[in-house]
Amino acid sequence: MNRDKGVTGPAGFRAAGIAAGIKASGALDLTLVVNDGPGTAAAGVFTTNVVKAAPVLWSQQVLQQRSLKAVVLNSGGANACTGPEGFQDTHATAEKVAEGLGCGAIEVAVCSTGLIGERLPMGKVLSGVDTAVTALASDDQAGLHAATGVMTTDTRPKQSWKAHEQGWSIGGFVKGAGMLAPNLATMLSVITTDADLDKDTIDTALREATRMTFDRLDVDGGTSTNDTVLVLASGASGVRPSAGEFTALLTEVSADLVKQLQGDAEGVTKEIAITVTGAATEDEAVHIGRIVAEDNLVKTALFGSDPNWGRIAMALGRAKARIDPGQLSIIINGIRVMDKGTRGEDRENADLTGRDIDVVIDLAFGRGEATILTTDLSHAYVEENSAYSS
Amino acid sequence: MNRDKGVTGPAGFRAAGIAAGIKASGALDLTLVVNDGPGTAAAGVFTTNVVKAAPVLWSQQVLQQRSLKAVVLNSGGANACTGPEGFQDTHATAEKVAEGLGCGAIEVAVCSTGLIGERLPMGKVLSGVDTAVTALASDDQAGLHAATGVMTTDTRPKQSWKAHEQGWSIGGFVKGAGMLAPNLATMLSVITTDADLDKDTIDTALREATRMTFDRLDVDGGTSTNDTVLVLASGASGVRPSAGEFTALLTEVSADLVKQLQGDAEGVTKEIAITVTGAATEDEAVHIGRIVAEDNLVKTALFGSDPNWGRIAMALGRAKARIDPGQLSIIINGIRVMDKGTRGEDRENADLTGRDIDVVIDLAFGRGEATILTTDLSHAYVEENSAYSS
Repeated sequence: MNRDKGVTGPAGFRAAGIAAGIKASGALDLTLVVNDGPGTAAAGVFTTNVVKAAPVLWSQQVLQQRSLKAVVLNSGGANACTGPEGFQDTHATAEKVAEGLGCGAIEVAVCSTGLIGERLPMGKVLSGVDTAVTALASDDQAGLHAATGVMTTDTRPKQSWKAHEQGWSIGGFVKGAGMLAPNLATMLSVITTDADLDKDTIDTALREATRMTFDRLDVDGGTSTNDTVLVLASGASGVRPSAGEFTALLTEVSADLVKQLQGDAEGVTKEIAITVTGAATEDEAVHIGRIVAEDNLVKTALFGSDPNWGRIAMALGRAKARIDPGQLSIIINGIRVMDKGTRGEDRENADLTGRDIDVVIDLAFGRGEATILTTDLSHAYVEENSAYSS
Repeated sequence: MNRDKGVTGPAGFRAAGIAAGIKASGALDLTLVVNDGPGTAAAGVFTTNVVKAAPVLWSQQVLQQRSLKAVVLNSGGANACTGPEGFQDTHATAEKVAEGLGCGAIEVAVCSTGLIGERLPMGKVLSGVDTAVTALASDDQAGLHAATGVMTTDTRPKQSWKAHEQGWSIGGFVKGAGMLAPNLATMLSVITTDADLDKDTIDTALREATRMTFDRLDVDGGTSTNDTVLVLASGASGVRPSAGEFTALLTEVSADLVKQLQGDAEGVTKEIAITVTGAATEDEAVHIGRIVAEDNLVKTALFGSDPNWGRIAMALGRAKARIDPGQLSIIINGIRVMDKGTRGEDRENADLTGRDIDVVIDLAFGRGEATILTTDLSHAYVEENSAYSS
């Protein structure tokens, strides 16, 4: 994986990230990604939250065509819970981009992130779009600026790029601090490829890749009003990979972006992988992993480097899944602290002082298996989320 | 409500709380409550966690008779995830109490609280039972000792007593820091009454009272391996109240115990009431209230005295319930900060500097309504749950 390249890594894309003045700090806050084709196939997945921000409602509508010419994103305001006026703001932003690029607004997706409930400063947004159109470029620097323009509580831009040996590649950026359904902060991701793809292939591949990556990072259980993952294909490489090849590489790039989200989550001091094996089904394994990942007693114990397996057993016992408590084993950093329902090896043997913690929960029931990535619950998490409005 | 009396408030009960040496600190750690009759009707509700502690499995079995002579409780160890040996320990404890009182083990419920996964020091437990039988008394002091013997991270004993004008009363104690399904720590409660009740009435009344009280305190969403609420009726007053009268007073005493749990929850700095109105059904109102109560972003914002209604809107949007985002209003401490889907009054007007915070979520959809009590997520919560194994 190459983390120095992102959305401008694949051929056929230009990008920009500029300071439109939406953020009082003067930091970059408006990003534009443009697909110069020749293809326009695109797909998107969106938050399942019933309270959807205006840009999500807009982009869902646009994506019904499975075709995109551009994506415009802003930080500094989520444009959520802003009513019909907020939706008009999103529409006006798409129109402005379309005007600048000479395409239709229906070919422009919009994403926003920041505080909920405030209208965007539209004067700044619209003149920012003009600036961004002028700044569009296809080099690495432009890709980095694009990745930077969407940051909120992120401490660093997060991008990834990988080439396939057959002459096409996938690149992208992400912002946020959670799963596809994050709670800590909105998660936005734009992924580009110069592979030549039809609309069905790109859509199916995105759903499969997010299911195995973005959907399996769970920082604190929620799903924001704005979460969006978009993938755009320019076809500029002239190569048409098989659905399997494309899905595999897309999953790889998505996993690298997710790993960076985990490492930069608010207040993170531990990067935790919770693997559930022996569940009745894969869905039940995911469900159990998420219950444990979201449990505040588990998360605080791991923050304290305490291999408190009793809290893990208690947490997973709440799952709506087939569990035989007498068959349950828990392995923490290689030490089988719970064995077939009762105490196993001395938990003092499990060394959790490092940053990485591996928890394996073996239900010894069926063949369902899944890994959920999460983080600990630290003082810094509480500080960051109580001291500032975000 | 009188908080100086508890389980020995009603006639026909004796209690004791003694130091059996289970806790290294030498604090009181074994409690015995005895029903001297003439009645023995009793009921219990238990954790829904699939990982159930040995005393829960035992007491569920015992309660099938809906008749109890005594309850023995220990702190200093949960006796959960301890296998068949742990169950034998519980059985032996009940046998020991039965022997001391001259009744059958099947008339003795057992409760435990403390660290999961460790066997109890049975020598100390069994000789502690002998001491407790000797110490049994019916005065207020004995009731207070009983309430003290079950404490773990509780900072104070919690009891409540109230007399009905027709000459009977209800008293009880509680320990823990959460709902009937708490996650912070096991919740145990023993409630006594000298009303004359049949088995069906006491069972139905307990389920109705817990549904409206213990089930509506949600500190952090879970349910422990040991949670238990028991109610015992001696009939010593000779008065047989109607089912409605008994349920009403039981609900009142339970609500007072729950209010004390909320006020003594780990790390609490805010006592928060989340009222959902206008939901499609009462169940949906409860579900939405709990989703908001369990949201770490909401809990940290309120810890920071920040009326961040956007986080509340985001949290409730995850509920599996009928919600029209355009009709949603949120009122925090009397200020309508979100009005019909968008920003309402200036949120700066909502003063959250005090300890009590009232959040009203109006869905303007149906007639379902419920109030969930919760607490904030503070530095002290993280400290208490990361620095010590519990």
